[in-house]
Amino acid sequence: MTQLPSAAPTIATEPGQTEPAFRLVAVAIEARILSGDIQPGDTLPSETNLAETLGVNRSTVREAIRALEQNGFVRRETGRKKLFAAVPQSRDISRRLKTAMVLDHVTFEELWEAMFALEPAAARSAAQRRTDDDLAALDANLAQMRLALHDSDVLTDLDIAFHHLVALATGNRAIQAARLPISELFYPPFLAVISRLNAAERLLFAHEKIVEAIRDQDSRQAQDWMEKHIQDFQRGYELANLDMGTPAALPRAGHDKQ
Amino acid sequence: MTQLPSAAPTIATEPGQTEPAFRLVAVAIEARILSGDIQPGDTLPSETNLAETLGVNRSTVREAIRALEQNGFVRRETGRKKLFAAVPQSRDISRRLKTAMVLDHVTFEELWEAMFALEPAAARSAAQRRTDDDLAALDANLAQMRLALHDSDVLTDLDIAFHHLVALATGNRAIQAARLPISELFYPPFLAVISRLNAAERLLFAHEKIVEAIRDQDSRQAQDWMEKHIQDFQRGYELANLDMGTPAALPRAGHDKQ
Repeated sequence: MTQLPSAAPTIATEPGQTEPAFRLVAVAIEARILSGDIQPGDTLPSETNLAETLGVNRSTVREAIRALEQNGFVRRETGRKKLFAAVPQSRDISRRLKTAMVLDHVTFEELWEAMFALEPAAARSAAQRRTDDDLAALDANLAQMRLALHDSDVLTDLDIAFHHLVALATGNRAIQAARLPISELFYPPFLAVISRLNAAERLLFAHEKIVEAIRDQDSRQAQDWMEKHIQDFQRGYELANLDMGTPAALPRAGHDKQ
Repeated sequence: MTQLPSAAPTIATEPGQTEPAFRLVAVAIEARILSGDIQPGDTLPSETNLAETLGVNRSTVREAIRALEQNGFVRRETGRKKLFAAVPQSRDISRRLKTAMVLDHVTFEELWEAMFALEPAAARSAAQRRTDDDLAALDANLAQMRLALHDSDVLTDLDIAFHHLVALATGNRAIQAARLPISELFYPPFLAVISRLNAAERLLFAHEKIVEAIRDQDSRQAQDWMEKHIQDFQRGYELANLDMGTPAALPRAGHDKQ
């Protein structure tokens, strides 16, 4: 069990403070995790224990813990008694960013431009750092796609999975974090359009070329083929006579929990 | 004042539910904001009012409101009585993502690779969409930089501001959101290194070339010069004999509130 935040005694009754007490408790605990004093996975003291030691109400501690849970700094076991220090997960943050972009009416053109920057860079990095496991996963994806050329729903899922596998093969968490929310807004509706154009063979061919380049560790070719591939997405949208200025939407509004 | 969530009557006593009641209340309100039923800026009913209508304790409502505040879906006036619907801000989310990357020990190499993808793309888009105001801001930044060539602190700030202005000129919120947390981890320490190398004139020259291309709406040149510029960052790091595999750090750990 970790030690309590050292700022504890002053938390309860700072005069003229603008932040509520629960916020100060949360920030103190968070600072200890950020500094490495408390390690992810460490058990935190119980709510009662924290309340006593910090000299604040249990309700204040509970609100602080909720805030830390929301931010991903605290997780609890299913039994709901024990609290653990944690680190915020990129996937949770990505979900928030996706929501913010939708509420901001970000357009498909903006998403496409960002993908046109990030996906070729991901393919280039993947060619430099891919492991045998990465190649096996990409090959499996290609094999499944060859069997699903006439099923546009399966094709869409496999395409999304393909780009995700390329991103994984980069071993670059900054690129992964940057592209995740954008890709999740971008691919599903784009692919819905493209599947109408009977472009499945063209899609598969591009993927095969990209995997070949990644296998050969030819980062130039991997980048170039991915660039062509992402350009094809835009062309498909234009061929379908759709407006790239349309704002993106969440796949199923309201189902995407924050 | 907006209507209450329609899912209200079932919230309090769903048997076998795995989510706490406050979470269901929060999700219901959030769904209404996401769907556009409740608009950002709309007043929400009071805590007491919500508790009565939803048939849950005030403490449950309070926890739900806290969760929504944490996620950026609810804001309150300084007086702390009135609650307003809101949309999550990219800047808040960026701060979380920055923290997550640091806790994940993301390296400078990963950040550099992501910047090498995003910054040239930003320059290209900026050349396509820059306004007169964007140009005026970039020109002012160049003018200030010419006066600060021997002050490495000011130079660092101006360089960060320069790249931020280029991103603003893109008018692309997806690119802006993707690059913000990465740029804030990347530039300060890199520039600290580069300022040691007496490379200020070279930095200014690259910025001048980028602005010239953006002014001329020459997206190819803007992209190429930005690419050279970001490559220079890497070269600077190598010249200073530093390890790109070092994990990034928050500028001042613990000061960066979530």
